Amino acid sequence: MTAQRSITFLSDYGVLDDFVGVCHGVMARIAPQARVIDVSHGVPRHDVRTAAIVLRRSLPSFAPGVHLAVVDPEVGTERRAIALRTAEEDRLLVGPDNGLLSLAAQRFGGIVEAVDVSRSVHRLEPVSATFHGRDIFAPVAAALAAGADLAGAGDPLDGDEVVRLHMPLARVETDGLVAHAIAFDGFGNVTLDVEHEELTGAGLRLGTQVTVNGQRAHYATTFTDVAAGDLLLYEDAYRTLALAVNRGSAREALGLELDAELTITPG
Amino acid sequence: MTAQRSITFLSDYGVLDDFVGVCHGVMARIAPQARVIDVSHGVPRHDVRTAAIVLRRSLPSFAPGVHLAVVDPEVGTERRAIALRTAEEDRLLVGPDNGLLSLAAQRFGGIVEAVDVSRSVHRLEPVSATFHGRDIFAPVAAALAAGADLAGAGDPLDGDEVVRLHMPLARVETDGLVAHAIAFDGFGNVTLDVEHEELTGAGLRLGTQVTVNGQRAHYATTFTDVAAGDLLLYEDAYRTLALAVNRGSAREALGLELDAELTITPG
Amino acid sequence: MTAQRSITFLSDYGVLDDFVGVCHGVMARIAPQARVIDVSHGVPRHDVRTAAIVLRRSLPSFAPGVHLAVVDPEVGTERRAIALRTAEEDRLLVGPDNGLLSLAAQRFGGIVEAVDVSRSVHRLEPVSATFHGRDIFAPVAAALAAGADLAGAGDPLDGDEVVRLHMPLARVETDGLVAHAIAFDGFGNVTLDVEHEELTGAGLRLGTQVTVNGQRAHYATTFTDVAAGDLLLYEDAYRTLALAVNRGSAREALGLELDAELTITPG
Repeated sequence: MTAQRSITFLSDYGVLDDFVGVCHGVMARIAPQARVIDVSHGVPRHDVRTAAIVLRRSLPSFAPGVHLAVVDPEVGTERRAIALRTAEEDRLLVGPDNGLLSLAAQRFGGIVEAVDVSRSVHRLEPVSATFHGRDIFAPVAAALAAGADLAGAGDPLDGDEVVRLHMPLARVETDGLVAHAIAFDGFGNVTLDVEHEELTGAGLRLGTQVTVNGQRAHYATTFTDVAAGDLLLYEDAYRTLALAVNRGSAREALGLELDAELTITPG
Repeated sequence: MTAQRSITFLSDYGVLDDFVGVCHGVMARIAPQARVIDVSHGVPRHDVRTAAIVLRRSLPSFAPGVHLAVVDPEVGTERRAIALRTAEEDRLLVGPDNGLLSLAAQRFGGIVEAVDVSRSVHRLEPVSATFHGRDIFAPVAAALAAGADLAGAGDPLDGDEVVRLHMPLARVETDGLVAHAIAFDGFGNVTLDVEHEELTGAGLRLGTQVTVNGQRAHYATTFTDVAAGDLLLYEDAYRTLALAVNRGSAREALGLELDAELTITPG
Repeated sequence: MTAQRSITFLSDYGVLDDFVGVCHGVMARIAPQARVIDVSHGVPRHDVRTAAIVLRRSLPSFAPGVHLAVVDPEVGTERRAIALRTAEEDRLLVGPDNGLLSLAAQRFGGIVEAVDVSRSVHRLEPVSATFHGRDIFAPVAAALAAGADLAGAGDPLDGDEVVRLHMPLARVETDGLVAHAIAFDGFGNVTLDVEHEELTGAGLRLGTQVTVNGQRAHYATTFTDVAAGDLLLYEDAYRTLALAVNRGSAREALGLELDAELTITPG
């Protein structure tokens, strides 16, 4: 038994159909000793950006290995299928070239090697028009987990050519922080584009009052630190800054659209 | 560590309850080294035919092994519980004898050996009235994966006695093809009973116009080959012929019931 | 490769988000050879008691090992995080100290050793305010599966201090049985707090008529033993007594609230 790298698998395939199971079957045939762990298959259908954020935030919890992600609204068109290696931790990311892998790649130091796997020797012929998870992505991921060489898995590709997501960028200003609403959950909680490390220079101190777009909020640890109906700024479980209203909706309270700008100042 | 065969598991148990988990637990106790892969547990409740079609189309993606399927509306009645061996690839199929296994068996050359496992030595006593997945099917599947003999897993049964699904049969006629609507998905896409191999003789050519029950359609590769609202005939990811309306419902456009006949002619 | 104990995982995290996947990732890093089996992640959100009942009834189907359960409405407050060893079968249970583990512990002879793992050496720093599944429970469970000592996983805790669920208790009386409605399913079937072993002394005989809160019922094996609309008392697949109306709702027919008392007499 040779050591095989583990594979993580994220998609928008859902849990009702056999798409996820079929991809598992394909991977088990090619890399029978590789452990395959499902990250989630409940990403909203075709929502590349949410999937990219989920991949970025969850990947540190998984051992370095092969990381397969398939959210692929343009399947069957000319969009590239890619595999890449990150600068840090030697992680191999596999998926469609639509920005899905870009945030995770960036988190691990960027791309040091990339290939276009659209016509990979590892793909399963005949390649269907609509199920590249089964025909291209899963077999390439499994071949890499089984020890195949990245360079041999596809045609050379410059890492700079890989599609990046256009994300707003938070910035520290003299009087505070300008951030953006990059994701909402079903409760109206708002994820901002500010991570723990970026907070230090912004002059915000835990346990103090802040102002968010002109409204008073508390920079708190948990929801129950504020009264029902009150606005709070907090670090979520992924150490990302977020906004919530205790037993309410911050999204509604602030009238936010996706990527809306938020000015956060102390006091 | 002895080599154990892998097990695939398909059911209508859903993902909310502990039924699937409990069956996994039972299999892991009996065959601790066998890899178990979930095909899907989201088959519509009690829908034996859809499950049979899913099993048939997904099985080629899985390595030959033990294939457990449980969609069992008649559990607790006199219906048989069976295990069988296919002529091709030595696959072992385990499940209720209600037609669920018949399409997959047929795809792999038919049944060369079958046993009635209702009173299998591998079953877990006491057998409940309602959870044969846990008490009969999972333990029999796991025992087979661990190397138990099929003949010893139950009482001998003639393969011809195994229940078959009554499915309509597509036929090639001089002026085209007569097919049937054997499944619908939630978007109103219609799966026909015609596979890739059967298409060759029907005189239909990719990229040309066809007529389906008197309506004009395009025999295309993907949805985006036709305008929004237009009808297309295409091969789905399982190389089965299907009908769709781009951004619409083919089922509604053609007013189809299950098993409805469709006459498809060139031009 | 050292032998590692298997881990079972039950939670209310659902299947849409990446919480379950992330916990799997954490466990695979710490105990790469441990098999992890999902019991269910579809327990109703924050419903500790239903989860405790599911854990108790499903655990006998799983090999003794480490049993992780996370339904944790008080995460981030002062509630303890615990790990404990059962008297029978040497099972190790890990989860929040809110009663979730208590019914399963009781089923396996009670608690012979317990530790408070809130500040376990195995936890992942920094511990977030809201995701103790990832930061405390999964790493402690995985460390135990990999062979870590229970005593070394936390601070000593008296087993009697572990929180127990307050459950009603069925009792046998001279003229029958007084039981309680401890859970409902979506069909209106009612789980009672009476297990197979407790039924013997109650004078109820399978196949006979009984009276439940003044209404006539049949003590039957399956739903189809009674006419549509009729009330039946039966043992469910977990050998627990239950009430149902064939093609109807026993909950509505009897107007039951959770923990409602039910008097069941022969005849």
